[in-house]
Amino acid sequence: MREELKLKGRLPGLIRSIVDGYAKTGRMNHLEGLALPDREKVIEIVDVMLGIIYPGYFGEKGVDHNTVEFHIGAQVERLYMLLFDQISRAITHECKRLGRVCTFCEDKAEEVAIDFISRIPQLREMLELDVQAAYDSDPAAKSFDEIIFSYPGMFAITVYRIAHELHRLGVPLIPRIMTEYAHTVTGIDIHPGAQIGRGFFIDHGTGIVIGETTEIGNGVKIYQGVTLGALAPAKGQALRGTKRHPTIMDNVTIYSGATILGGQTTIGEGAVIGGNVWLTHSVEPGTNVVIEDPQLRFRSPSKKK
Amino acid sequence: MREELKLKGRLPGLIRSIVDGYAKTGRMNHLEGLALPDREKVIEIVDVMLGIIYPGYFGEKGVDHNTVEFHIGAQVERLYMLLFDQISRAITHECKRLGRVCTFCEDKAEEVAIDFISRIPQLREMLELDVQAAYDSDPAAKSFDEIIFSYPGMFAITVYRIAHELHRLGVPLIPRIMTEYAHTVTGIDIHPGAQIGRGFFIDHGTGIVIGETTEIGNGVKIYQGVTLGALAPAKGQALRGTKRHPTIMDNVTIYSGATILGGQTTIGEGAVIGGNVWLTHSVEPGTNVVIEDPQLRFRSPSKKK
Amino acid sequence: MREELKLKGRLPGLIRSIVDGYAKTGRMNHLEGLALPDREKVIEIVDVMLGIIYPGYFGEKGVDHNTVEFHIGAQVERLYMLLFDQISRAITHECKRLGRVCTFCEDKAEEVAIDFISRIPQLREMLELDVQAAYDSDPAAKSFDEIIFSYPGMFAITVYRIAHELHRLGVPLIPRIMTEYAHTVTGIDIHPGAQIGRGFFIDHGTGIVIGETTEIGNGVKIYQGVTLGALAPAKGQALRGTKRHPTIMDNVTIYSGATILGGQTTIGEGAVIGGNVWLTHSVEPGTNVVIEDPQLRFRSPSKKK
Repeated sequence: MREELKLKGRLPGLIRSIVDGYAKTGRMNHLEGLALPDREKVIEIVDVMLGIIYPGYFGEKGVDHNTVEFHIGAQVERLYMLLFDQISRAITHECKRLGRVCTFCEDKAEEVAIDFISRIPQLREMLELDVQAAYDSDPAAKSFDEIIFSYPGMFAITVYRIAHELHRLGVPLIPRIMTEYAHTVTGIDIHPGAQIGRGFFIDHGTGIVIGETTEIGNGVKIYQGVTLGALAPAKGQALRGTKRHPTIMDNVTIYSGATILGGQTTIGEGAVIGGNVWLTHSVEPGTNVVIEDPQLRFRSPSKKK
Repeated sequence: MREELKLKGRLPGLIRSIVDGYAKTGRMNHLEGLALPDREKVIEIVDVMLGIIYPGYFGEKGVDHNTVEFHIGAQVERLYMLLFDQISRAITHECKRLGRVCTFCEDKAEEVAIDFISRIPQLREMLELDVQAAYDSDPAAKSFDEIIFSYPGMFAITVYRIAHELHRLGVPLIPRIMTEYAHTVTGIDIHPGAQIGRGFFIDHGTGIVIGETTEIGNGVKIYQGVTLGALAPAKGQALRGTKRHPTIMDNVTIYSGATILGGQTTIGEGAVIGGNVWLTHSVEPGTNVVIEDPQLRFRSPSKKK
Repeated sequence: MREELKLKGRLPGLIRSIVDGYAKTGRMNHLEGLALPDREKVIEIVDVMLGIIYPGYFGEKGVDHNTVEFHIGAQVERLYMLLFDQISRAITHECKRLGRVCTFCEDKAEEVAIDFISRIPQLREMLELDVQAAYDSDPAAKSFDEIIFSYPGMFAITVYRIAHELHRLGVPLIPRIMTEYAHTVTGIDIHPGAQIGRGFFIDHGTGIVIGETTEIGNGVKIYQGVTLGALAPAKGQALRGTKRHPTIMDNVTIYSGATILGGQTTIGEGAVIGGNVWLTHSVEPGTNVVIEDPQLRFRSPSKKK
């Protein structure tokens, strides 16, 4: 790089006009001196959680049953400090945004952090059923190891279940940062507000969208490119707070590219929804829905030239 | 790890044959001693820009109106050095590739860097309209915070608008590295050459493709899996430089999975294109296009066994 | 962050119940004191390989023909140590999982590492044909540089070809961790077991799925959202080890969103499969398959209000 740059003298003026702009477009700044949650720290919480949920797979390697308590002890303490700090920022910010006074924000943050940590054993039991479902459902799965290590669906479900707990405990901002991080990593977009039962399996997963008010039962399997979405979402804020996304009952399978829309749409128990099916109304239990083969035109090579 | 590896003696021979291969497949090396742009540094430019565009959300936390000038001042200086260095590499490399002599490459790089920085305030005004459009259009959006922090569509649009400025200023290689970085993070693939108007909203976004010669008006909304592409792109280099991608007029909404192809295809103002629609011809203003419900076959459970 | 947290005294009890849970859901722990492969190190292998395959583009910048041997020599040695260590972990773990005794695991790991390194020159020759195919096929490609630097398809193919070599050499776990890493980065999911010929081109790529037993010939082009998958994959472990995914012959082009399913499905040489086509049976060589335009309903603005 050159020692001297000729145009550097123009920087102070440019900086001034950028800073002046902060006053103009004030809703894109956060310059009240109050620290917002930190995306990197929220991702660190997810990483620490992976090591606690799947010890030996993530985090420290080569741990055994004798040493795990010390190792996990340190990790849980680290988790607690991270959770307290980030939840505290999120709650304080929300409080201020709603024009309230923040008397108990820090106490609330501490209680939520402890509540969340106390639910880790149940979270692991839920996730074990998800790993089992992946193993049973995917002929390419060689072992539990491979699923835990490398299946994007398993990662997305793990992060969703963590985020959903925090969402349930009323924490703002952080759950969505977590699920959007998983979206980034996997292409699977599950809103933390969605409700998903036991033994959930996602294969491949890229392009899946599961909206905020979706309800999913037990033993459901979903493939890449499936949307569980809203009708006419572009109508925007008018729809806020309503049930806009479908209900999927137990043991439903939804193949790749299918789209199911609307808050009144219920897919009955055990139904199988074929690839690329587009549904905006309910389906009876046990029904098998496939798209009529669209007419294909075949032009044979003799006609081609 | 073992102290001694038995087969290590075979490495020098293997290294030799790899290096010999560099002479053979010469187009996959860049061994002229001239530094190419560095992908990591280009990503660093994007990160620094995020902190400048959305202060308090990205970069340093807890900044206030009194301290922001010093903080941003340092960031803009860092941005300038990074931009100068990477743009300089890109221009010098392009110059050499085209067989020209590089007399003013460094001066050009400096001018472009300053030009780009001087446009940051306008860039922020454009982006504020995009954040507003997301807030107005998405019933799940709780606040501006959530959109700026976690919406992948907002990230992809921000990176596109940065890259498009550099593309407009004639910088080679770097704009595409930027938009492909956003593609990696979000699954949204916007070519830096595309032209996109004000108040652009992308929801979910995974799988969106917006080609090089696409033109998009103001107030357009696009959902996951939408392709704005070329007819028969596989015809390759023969099509280079032609208008191959569609034109989308103001206030058009395009729902998930729709595909619109061809340089002559224009979607008229205010049209609504339904999910999964496949279009290779123009549509009049205000038209609502939906796919005829494909015939679905329902097999009820009684017939199943 | 506060100095003192009130609820911290509850942590030891919570840690105990988490550790107790490890005994209960034992299949999600790996607490035998034996180190599993490390995902971060496997990704490091991919990074080192990129610098060896595309010198000057990735890894050290500004290297020239005189200095490259020393630079690459050091990188190959680093690669060897990383490969030996990770392959050794994977083989030892697999051996134990299958209840075998690990007499030659480390010797095997060393041989595989050397074998793999000895094949790097051929790997580069294969990849050069892939870069050439991208350049010839994409009208937006300005240069080889742009493709190597920023095309996600090129990245996914590079990682697939590395992983496929290791898969061919019988290495467990690691190949899948590599291709799932590429899936994360690109949204392109290629199983390391798939067989793919020369001059393979992927454009955009988000949402592509290529299953474990897929066979692809030479000169094939594939666009975003294409699935080469199994019929009824949800039948699970019963299908393990069978040929479940299609065969694509030489010079086939498959446009965006097409789905081709089933182990008996063969797409004949030179066929062109149109966007969104859904195929579960074979297609003759040279055939052009397009979907009949689905009926679209157009509601003009006069009728709208």
